[in-house]
Amino acid sequence: MTEITAIRDLLSSKPRPVGWGERRARLDEVGTHWPVAEDIQCTDIQCDGIPGEWSTAPGSDADKVLLYFHGGGYCSGSIRSHRRLVTEAGRAARMRTLAIDYRRAPEHPFPAQHEDALAAWRFLRRQGIAAEDIAVGGDSAGGNLTLALIGRLHAAGEPLPRCAWLISPWTDLTMSGATLASKDAIDPIIHKAYLEELAGAYVPAGQDRGDPLISPLFADLHGFPPLLIQVGSAEALLSDATRLAEAAGIADVPVRLEIWPHMIHAWPVWNAGLEDGRRALCAAGAFMRNAGS
Amino acid sequence: MTEITAIRDLLSSKPRPVGWGERRARLDEVGTHWPVAEDIQCTDIQCDGIPGEWSTAPGSDADKVLLYFHGGGYCSGSIRSHRRLVTEAGRAARMRTLAIDYRRAPEHPFPAQHEDALAAWRFLRRQGIAAEDIAVGGDSAGGNLTLALIGRLHAAGEPLPRCAWLISPWTDLTMSGATLASKDAIDPIIHKAYLEELAGAYVPAGQDRGDPLISPLFADLHGFPPLLIQVGSAEALLSDATRLAEAAGIADVPVRLEIWPHMIHAWPVWNAGLEDGRRALCAAGAFMRNAGS
Repeated sequence: MTEITAIRDLLSSKPRPVGWGERRARLDEVGTHWPVAEDIQCTDIQCDGIPGEWSTAPGSDADKVLLYFHGGGYCSGSIRSHRRLVTEAGRAARMRTLAIDYRRAPEHPFPAQHEDALAAWRFLRRQGIAAEDIAVGGDSAGGNLTLALIGRLHAAGEPLPRCAWLISPWTDLTMSGATLASKDAIDPIIHKAYLEELAGAYVPAGQDRGDPLISPLFADLHGFPPLLIQVGSAEALLSDATRLAEAAGIADVPVRLEIWPHMIHAWPVWNAGLEDGRRALCAAGAFMRNAGS
Repeated sequence: MTEITAIRDLLSSKPRPVGWGERRARLDEVGTHWPVAEDIQCTDIQCDGIPGEWSTAPGSDADKVLLYFHGGGYCSGSIRSHRRLVTEAGRAARMRTLAIDYRRAPEHPFPAQHEDALAAWRFLRRQGIAAEDIAVGGDSAGGNLTLALIGRLHAAGEPLPRCAWLISPWTDLTMSGATLASKDAIDPIIHKAYLEELAGAYVPAGQDRGDPLISPLFADLHGFPPLLIQVGSAEALLSDATRLAEAAGIADVPVRLEIWPHMIHAWPVWNAGLEDGRRALCAAGAFMRNAGS
């Protein structure tokens, strides 16, 4: 409990940011509190106009890729804020990683993010990488985007990734999960009013937030690849994860749900200072390596 | 899908049994369709008057024990019907196993089963085996009994097992799970009317089936050891598993939920003819070995 308390202290060390600019700066700041490990190689890339970054850890398999979508409610977060998470996930999975800076709301509302995710996927495929050699993952809104990408590929009849890895996914933008209220007092990051603001920026006025493209909890998940869902027990979004696990399982998707006691929203971001973050990445890495085998 | 179809054929190869005697004989028969592996050593034992059986696979650690409670709705099932499951689970966990023939309903209604489970646990402890060296597990009603035992130990302030392993657990004897209806047509074993009959035999008239001792879904699960819950997607009891995962996670219990596509109630019973049964045991074995470390 000492390490997670230190993360909570880090998060509350400054006043809660207001406005998109402050929020983006703050997430970049807390996300980079621990820098990337020295043995990771990072390279900038443009994926058909979308800024991206490759990372490679020693011993990783260049033929396999983790395509990662950062969280931040579709409004903040970046390659920079999530670099430590993504690069260590690649080490654990023994894969190269490709993180992208998809367009963010409110400047770019839905479905700009879906278009960018699809473009990055197709860019990867055009490099000659087989769909079954690509794991797709994301935290929070990035988990939402991961499911949306798979849904779009599935609807288009295209090959699907080997697996999907979801950390603290935001799956229900109608905000009907029971833990939004019951875990509100213990969650240091996610509160319903904040989610309402994010959804208002991301979803165009008049669009149904229960649309399966926007809330994948309500999508037809039949045919999806194996899912690993990791969530903390101190999360207002806990029931977004547990309900997704149930819905996917009902649809005959191979599902593994892990609930980590006392962990907070997207805790593997702070893996450098948090053993349970490293352990979660280790479990996710093994899952991604072994998926489909 | 071929192997699970063969199991379905085995289950439907004879008319559905009627009455407790026929049901017990039938479960013993299908459960022993594949015999125990030749390299397993089994030894009868009396645990303070409760019939039990030790099993040891080559290379297993004699200092660690899996205490196993068979399923069968508290009315059928036995050491014999579940021998292949229990002995192969011990091999996967690299532990000795102790299976017991707890008293069955309707001859012995609730709480006779709880008394026998507690007696077997205390018998094990008196052999000098530490609580943290004991994993407890069970399928179906045996999963219910596993949770009940932990609840009783917790309430008594006694040391708890290292972990609990639940296959297709029956957690809600009020039968309020949504998949009882939605998976009824695909589930070859469990139907609501059958569960009602079982609950009627197990729970004394006038007793509340929502009592947390009878339906551990409604128990206070705070302080429980790590849980592995394995369930098939073709199960009417799927939502007994997913709701337990959510309830335990909310209570800060380390939870891993695995949903196995197309698998049926307690499918690892037929591991000898079912690769997904062997894979589930392999995952459970690793979980039990690593729990608490």
